[in-house]
Amino acid sequence: MNGLMMNVPLSVTSIMEHAERVNGNVEIVSVTGDNPRHRYTYRDAFLRTRQLANGLAGWGLAQGDRIATLAWNDYRHFETYYAAACSGYVCHTINPRLFPEQVAYIINHAEDQYVFFDPDFLPLVESVAAECPGVKGWIILTNEAHMPGTSLPRVQCYETLVAAGDGVFEWPQLDENTACALCYTSGTTGNPKGVLYSHRSTMLHAYATMMPDAMGLSSRDVVLPIVPMFHVNAWGTPYSCPMAGAKLVFPGGKMGDGATLAALINEEGVTMSAGVPTVWLGLIAYLKSSGLRVDTLDRIIVGGAACPLSIMEDFDKYGVETRVGWGMTEMSPLGSVNSSPADRERYSDEEFAKVRLKAGRPIFGVEMKIVSDTGAEQPWDGVAFGSLKVRGPWICSSYFKLDSSDAHAEEGWFETGDVATIDAQGYMAITDRTKDVIKSGGEWISSIEVENVATDHPKVAEAAVIGHFHPKWSERPLLIVVRNADGQDLTAAEMLAWFDGKIAKWWTPEAVEFVDELPHTATGKLQKVTLRQMFKDYSFPG
Amino acid sequence: MNGLMMNVPLSVTSIMEHAERVNGNVEIVSVTGDNPRHRYTYRDAFLRTRQLANGLAGWGLAQGDRIATLAWNDYRHFETYYAAACSGYVCHTINPRLFPEQVAYIINHAEDQYVFFDPDFLPLVESVAAECPGVKGWIILTNEAHMPGTSLPRVQCYETLVAAGDGVFEWPQLDENTACALCYTSGTTGNPKGVLYSHRSTMLHAYATMMPDAMGLSSRDVVLPIVPMFHVNAWGTPYSCPMAGAKLVFPGGKMGDGATLAALINEEGVTMSAGVPTVWLGLIAYLKSSGLRVDTLDRIIVGGAACPLSIMEDFDKYGVETRVGWGMTEMSPLGSVNSSPADRERYSDEEFAKVRLKAGRPIFGVEMKIVSDTGAEQPWDGVAFGSLKVRGPWICSSYFKLDSSDAHAEEGWFETGDVATIDAQGYMAITDRTKDVIKSGGEWISSIEVENVATDHPKVAEAAVIGHFHPKWSERPLLIVVRNADGQDLTAAEMLAWFDGKIAKWWTPEAVEFVDELPHTATGKLQKVTLRQMFKDYSFPG
Repeated sequence: MNGLMMNVPLSVTSIMEHAERVNGNVEIVSVTGDNPRHRYTYRDAFLRTRQLANGLAGWGLAQGDRIATLAWNDYRHFETYYAAACSGYVCHTINPRLFPEQVAYIINHAEDQYVFFDPDFLPLVESVAAECPGVKGWIILTNEAHMPGTSLPRVQCYETLVAAGDGVFEWPQLDENTACALCYTSGTTGNPKGVLYSHRSTMLHAYATMMPDAMGLSSRDVVLPIVPMFHVNAWGTPYSCPMAGAKLVFPGGKMGDGATLAALINEEGVTMSAGVPTVWLGLIAYLKSSGLRVDTLDRIIVGGAACPLSIMEDFDKYGVETRVGWGMTEMSPLGSVNSSPADRERYSDEEFAKVRLKAGRPIFGVEMKIVSDTGAEQPWDGVAFGSLKVRGPWICSSYFKLDSSDAHAEEGWFETGDVATIDAQGYMAITDRTKDVIKSGGEWISSIEVENVATDHPKVAEAAVIGHFHPKWSERPLLIVVRNADGQDLTAAEMLAWFDGKIAKWWTPEAVEFVDELPHTATGKLQKVTLRQMFKDYSFPG
Repeated sequence: MNGLMMNVPLSVTSIMEHAERVNGNVEIVSVTGDNPRHRYTYRDAFLRTRQLANGLAGWGLAQGDRIATLAWNDYRHFETYYAAACSGYVCHTINPRLFPEQVAYIINHAEDQYVFFDPDFLPLVESVAAECPGVKGWIILTNEAHMPGTSLPRVQCYETLVAAGDGVFEWPQLDENTACALCYTSGTTGNPKGVLYSHRSTMLHAYATMMPDAMGLSSRDVVLPIVPMFHVNAWGTPYSCPMAGAKLVFPGGKMGDGATLAALINEEGVTMSAGVPTVWLGLIAYLKSSGLRVDTLDRIIVGGAACPLSIMEDFDKYGVETRVGWGMTEMSPLGSVNSSPADRERYSDEEFAKVRLKAGRPIFGVEMKIVSDTGAEQPWDGVAFGSLKVRGPWICSSYFKLDSSDAHAEEGWFETGDVATIDAQGYMAITDRTKDVIKSGGEWISSIEVENVATDHPKVAEAAVIGHFHPKWSERPLLIVVRNADGQDLTAAEMLAWFDGKIAKWWTPEAVEFVDELPHTATGKLQKVTLRQMFKDYSFPG
């Protein structure tokens, strides 16, 4: 027997309509190439979104067609998100930091019909346009006064497109499972794979991120999403902020600029922000050198890479709570958040420093389990580790135009590719990537933990640990180190001695090799596949 | 084109499973008839829930069958909620404060198969059991030591039932639209009507109530639901607290006892509570007389009836934020919450006193509109008023075993039966019940606003305003007053003079009549139908 409740679809359109009516006076502030501080309201934004939707409607697109963006975080990108998704098309955000051949691959694989891009990315677009014959038009996100000269065919000016559209538009009624957004994830191997979000998944994810233990967004918040809108929808903030009625502050292309970030925080009264560790290092360096403070800032979410303890300790001094978030493109992205535990006082400062570095507790809606090689579920004791699998309504079931078996080996669960522990309070900690874990005598060694100890050495710039064939233990850890400028005299014996007492004896690398640099992907990820290839003929001494 | 996201149903079962794994160590504290401070964890609770589910499984019930409760807020009631809903049955909460004939009507209309009840309600159950031949068993929510003597047939002891059940139970996979809970709403006329909630609606509503601008629940909260679990699922707290990992404190039958509430708040560290105005008046009176404080308490949600400003001002002094909530049984119940506005500093204290008394802003997920007699949508200007209609995924589409037209005259919208204004910031204020609004010369007069002015008079105990036939204006307001002990000398002329300058001249009642008492329903609502009947032969003077 079914309940007798209204069948109202969960949709991005409902977010827009709510914000326009209930939070219409709330501001969106943007840094753009043509205006250092553009300022308008949600009401203005969604009026222009309807104008844009009228423009798109004239293009003869079919429901589900992809409209791509190569753009910074600003109000025009925001409008494009909603106009595309709520018209029944798919807003496909492309990472402009990828190699041009990857960008061309993604545009063609997604079969993008139109591409909206910031003037900053004109050189990139010009370099790939000839490889993308399916694109019917290139829309430059600026006004006529700032249109750059270009030899690109079929170019349009965004502001001209918007100005030509009527402000009245009847949004279509969409089934909640309709696709609304697409984002490609670039692993360290193979071609990028597309994750296709639905209206339902996007709305539910936004709800979940608003919870006080996640981002905790209210109408009293001012939110600065430093994480790019091309990076898993800026962790949902373009959806969650209008839902909450939070003021949005978009940094445009200035997310790496500590001075701009500090000015935006202090002048706009930012209370919450989200970004990767690199941007926080930049902001902290600027605050230290300038002597400025960030008194309105209450909390930040740090994700995308492991957060160094130093960031948390620096922000502690500024009165800002640092919350580690963990997720994946395939998870919309949020899976867990490390907010202050209810029993904080039970921990010593040293214990707390360890707890706060963990990936956090699963947010409601995300189920997690850790399993051994044989598929046996591991206990949540903070010690046992296993492959991390996740399940939930905003987690991908398969990749765009790929077989579903690419996403999960076990039906109904997504394989994160991470190895993790989970403790009795639900705190999950990533210990390794599944493919990087080292199996020594049948036992697992976390390459990440060994690397963390190595990089703590004052003479080490960067370090990587890979599993390498060993006749007795089948695999043993091989440490590969880049010495820093002051550490050119670091010896292998000195390096190995560093591990004494810091990790289990049998986790200590079997040997150490020094190199001038380590191989990385376009987005800065260490390429261990290449590294293993480089050392394939290596033999452990003795 | 659909998104490629997992098809994971939204369910109450997922709340239970999340809480058991992630928030397993968090406490639930209960006051019961057999234990003044029972204490265990979510892990314990859901183990016992599985034991209970095994007990229910032996009864041969079909999916969708109703299991009723007549019970206070405590851990056994909580277990019954989950065991029934997650087994695929429906947990039907009955208000024990209704007249016995209404309770019997509800049990029979719902076709309840089993009834779980607190020993306190044995006299009520004994008085209705003979009228309820369909009930296959009566389960008393206590242990063997505290089983009362009774002549009831087919009686079982709850603790014996739980103890006999195995702790392992495989919860069924339920479609998210499956019914999970049933609650009858008793209007001022006609038989009570049943609202049948689904797993989907219940989970979405719980998500929404967790938002910082609603209840703002986190794992650092300790929540005291004073609103009964038979009153629209205690506003969702038995679902939202396990989702958040908030500690739950159940007051049992002591919700009207200021001393018990103050002790629970102070001893258990309660941070958030929810209840009707009456309980707050009781708590405040106790705090004033005892000199005690409630320092851990951060905020309260007041709903179920209009909140007097005095409650807010008293709680201001105790450092507690009062949030008015508005909703209906048909809305699960939450529709709007009045949390502190972002621009509080723009208001003078006097203006703010008016704003904070409003029903608040619609929470995301609830759409509202106000329409005139002719169905024309009214502007959100805080002045224009109209019939309030609502729409959303946790709002009822029809009543249990009734035609859907009972729930909404306009397809897709639920008629709240209220008349309201909404201002440009989205603050909604109820001005009247649709059927009580007075139409004078084609213009609407709010009976509630006139009543509020009348009851402010120092000699008035209670007042009601009804529309009454008038030859020129078609209807004019007639004020009916109960004088208080000190006000027996209040005259009609004195009463009418009181309105000068307080409301629009044409809203002032045409006449005033004095009575010894006004007619009320079992739940204390004024019965204006009866009142209109009483005065049907009345003529305005002159």
